[in-house]
Amino acid sequence: MDEKDTSRLEAFSDGVFAVAITLLILNVTFKYTDPHGVQLLDTEIWSKGIVSQWPQLFAFVTSFFTIGVMWLNHHRLFKLIRRTDTVLLILNILLLMVIVFIPVPTSLLAEYLNFPQYHVAALIYCGAFLLMTIFYNFLWRYAAYKGRLLGHNVNQLAVAGINRQYLAGPLVYLVAFGLAGINTLICVIFCFVLAIFFAIPGHELKTILLRRSPSTPEIGVGISDKWHEQ
Amino acid sequence: MDEKDTSRLEAFSDGVFAVAITLLILNVTFKYTDPHGVQLLDTEIWSKGIVSQWPQLFAFVTSFFTIGVMWLNHHRLFKLIRRTDTVLLILNILLLMVIVFIPVPTSLLAEYLNFPQYHVAALIYCGAFLLMTIFYNFLWRYAAYKGRLLGHNVNQLAVAGINRQYLAGPLVYLVAFGLAGINTLICVIFCFVLAIFFAIPGHELKTILLRRSPSTPEIGVGISDKWHEQ
Amino acid sequence: MDEKDTSRLEAFSDGVFAVAITLLILNVTFKYTDPHGVQLLDTEIWSKGIVSQWPQLFAFVTSFFTIGVMWLNHHRLFKLIRRTDTVLLILNILLLMVIVFIPVPTSLLAEYLNFPQYHVAALIYCGAFLLMTIFYNFLWRYAAYKGRLLGHNVNQLAVAGINRQYLAGPLVYLVAFGLAGINTLICVIFCFVLAIFFAIPGHELKTILLRRSPSTPEIGVGISDKWHEQ
Amino acid sequence: MDEKDTSRLEAFSDGVFAVAITLLILNVTFKYTDPHGVQLLDTEIWSKGIVSQWPQLFAFVTSFFTIGVMWLNHHRLFKLIRRTDTVLLILNILLLMVIVFIPVPTSLLAEYLNFPQYHVAALIYCGAFLLMTIFYNFLWRYAAYKGRLLGHNVNQLAVAGINRQYLAGPLVYLVAFGLAGINTLICVIFCFVLAIFFAIPGHELKTILLRRSPSTPEIGVGISDKWHEQ
Repeated sequence: MDEKDTSRLEAFSDGVFAVAITLLILNVTFKYTDPHGVQLLDTEIWSKGIVSQWPQLFAFVTSFFTIGVMWLNHHRLFKLIRRTDTVLLILNILLLMVIVFIPVPTSLLAEYLNFPQYHVAALIYCGAFLLMTIFYNFLWRYAAYKGRLLGHNVNQLAVAGINRQYLAGPLVYLVAFGLAGINTLICVIFCFVLAIFFAIPGHELKTILLRRSPSTPEIGVGISDKWHEQ
Repeated sequence: MDEKDTSRLEAFSDGVFAVAITLLILNVTFKYTDPHGVQLLDTEIWSKGIVSQWPQLFAFVTSFFTIGVMWLNHHRLFKLIRRTDTVLLILNILLLMVIVFIPVPTSLLAEYLNFPQYHVAALIYCGAFLLMTIFYNFLWRYAAYKGRLLGHNVNQLAVAGINRQYLAGPLVYLVAFGLAGINTLICVIFCFVLAIFFAIPGHELKTILLRRSPSTPEIGVGISDKWHEQ
Repeated sequence: MDEKDTSRLEAFSDGVFAVAITLLILNVTFKYTDPHGVQLLDTEIWSKGIVSQWPQLFAFVTSFFTIGVMWLNHHRLFKLIRRTDTVLLILNILLLMVIVFIPVPTSLLAEYLNFPQYHVAALIYCGAFLLMTIFYNFLWRYAAYKGRLLGHNVNQLAVAGINRQYLAGPLVYLVAFGLAGINTLICVIFCFVLAIFFAIPGHELKTILLRRSPSTPEIGVGISDKWHEQ
Repeated sequence: MDEKDTSRLEAFSDGVFAVAITLLILNVTFKYTDPHGVQLLDTEIWSKGIVSQWPQLFAFVTSFFTIGVMWLNHHRLFKLIRRTDTVLLILNILLLMVIVFIPVPTSLLAEYLNFPQYHVAALIYCGAFLLMTIFYNFLWRYAAYKGRLLGHNVNQLAVAGINRQYLAGPLVYLVAFGLAGINTLICVIFCFVLAIFFAIPGHELKTILLRRSPSTPEIGVGISDKWHEQ
């Protein structure tokens, strides 16, 4: 009656997230030759081959962590969304398109992290994340509108928590957008902090995910039948 | 008695679709150097590094959306197909081969989107999609012939809806093929529209997928036992 | 009591097969410039950009079909293998290593398909497939030895069918190895035929997979309980 | 009551492991031209095109086997870990980040395997594995602390076995780190041996995984209900 109809959607999305997050590593290379193609000496590898690549590594870590957290959010949404329709499937494809796109601005950003007076690469990087939060809002608000595709007994506190957190999403990335105009490095550090913000669920959602205190009677009823199916 | 025997086929197909759709991004790069290898200035990045790459982005979006919708169709078919045999498995491998091939004509198309008087790249691009719809027809018609591999109580309206939509598939891509001979850009826009056409299921199928009106007694009986298993 | 313990092994293997089979496409490129870097004219694209790449396409199709069929065989084995142990997991990792390696000899082969008097590339290509069948034998024979990791009521006819087909595996690829010394093209065509050979299960296995004749009382008993779990 | 809440976490992790392990092959290429771009003759392919690439192949095999065994360990941990919380999900993302990073030091190592008097590449390679074992310890010890996220009736012998083996993890990779300072080749061979060490579970864990002796009454009770769910 309230059966889960989203398993293959989740499997496909997991696959796309997993490939996209792993392709980020293709932007990271350690150098083993100098600009003239001569192989680096043992004493040069660390400084010229590895430390010099810190912008690539820093951009990789920030984007990897952000996509990872976005997978986490996808995971959370589809604990609440229990049915699909054509519009939801299309909105999910569009969201995945933005996720798959992330390695491209990440690669550009890495080239300009050494130039703090340059701003365009960081603006595009933040712009991609801003777009991502907007598509997350489309997906969630379409599914949650009047509980359209949610479970019948879904936890309303969790829904309200996501509503609030996702409303804040585009706004905080607009701040990152502004920071990109000031200093590229500060902007990327801020993006990293934002990923942590989205990793932490709202209070009610947190209660569901942690499930460590057995004494949560106010949400126990609506949720219990869902947990048994997963 | 009518158990689902296609779960690992679907898992493997989901994986191939997910990797193929993500590899499309490898064709998209933002430039950070001019043709002489000098790094672009902050004022040049937007126009010379990003806007100039619009053909890659446009080809990426069209192919991503098309493969995404084709995954959606695979998903729909295997809600009805419930058993496998060797021929079906081979037809599925051949279909996946065409899906995996899509990034190659996409990459070629991107190189020629700036040359509206050139037609061959667009013809090959449409030809790949035409081949894809033909293989979808092979897969579906083999499985649906006399209900060979479908569930015993499968919804006949859904089957008829797919029959009609898939018959139209090669025909509409033949039209795209013709448009490629006239104007590359119009042809690619038409391909995008076709993806939306295949995203929307036929009337009966739509009723199944949306499942928003509880009062659909004419299909309720045959379908009900299937939903409970998924 | 005879529960299935291989689901995550299968999920991981499906993932590796899916990525490896899709990476084959990275060896296929259509050309859009001539050797001097000048973009090809519309009249040149078909002959100089696409038809000239037939070795890449032919090698891609052969390897894709072979890996696809090998996935099929993995699928079949793990319908019979129902438990894992450390040795099986390690043998499976070694088998996957050979699968992942296939794109490398495929790429080399594509470079030498135009040189029928050259044999080494084809020898290495067949050698990789030979190695693959040997590892399949290791995996299967370890699991099937005295029914070690098979289900308790496993169909003995299916086991015997795989035993025979897998014994033939290395032998027929040795023939391919010999053909590589005569003519590269004939050898690759033979590899394609071999993939079809491995796609078709032995008589008893075929009966299981097709399951189209409800009157198969001789295998019905041992198999029935397994089908209901999947 | 003690239901499994980690299925989608495992699916995503399987995907990332599968893609990362497969991307290792991108570092392996057989040569078909000499340094001047002239295609190799049939007599030269074996020695100049393939045998000369042994460092790439050796680094590939070592890293593939290590990542494969690390997947195996992830698999084992999540047979015991049955619930997730935000911290665990973040620790898992960080662990996956290190896994995805492995191809980069592998590629660097391959360039320096021919230079036994060079040590930095091997130090970085071992350093990446050291980091990996440290993150495995973080993940496991967070989940296992006071049985926080483990099943209620989890086998305490298995937990103790992992505790001991994982404590040894960073220590043995520190030894590899030291060997890197002596001889690169010996160090990589030692890394291969370490992968075998981590492939073999501790005594108690081994009993669980093999499950070949039906007479294991001391662990039978706590484990039985878990096996039936998988």
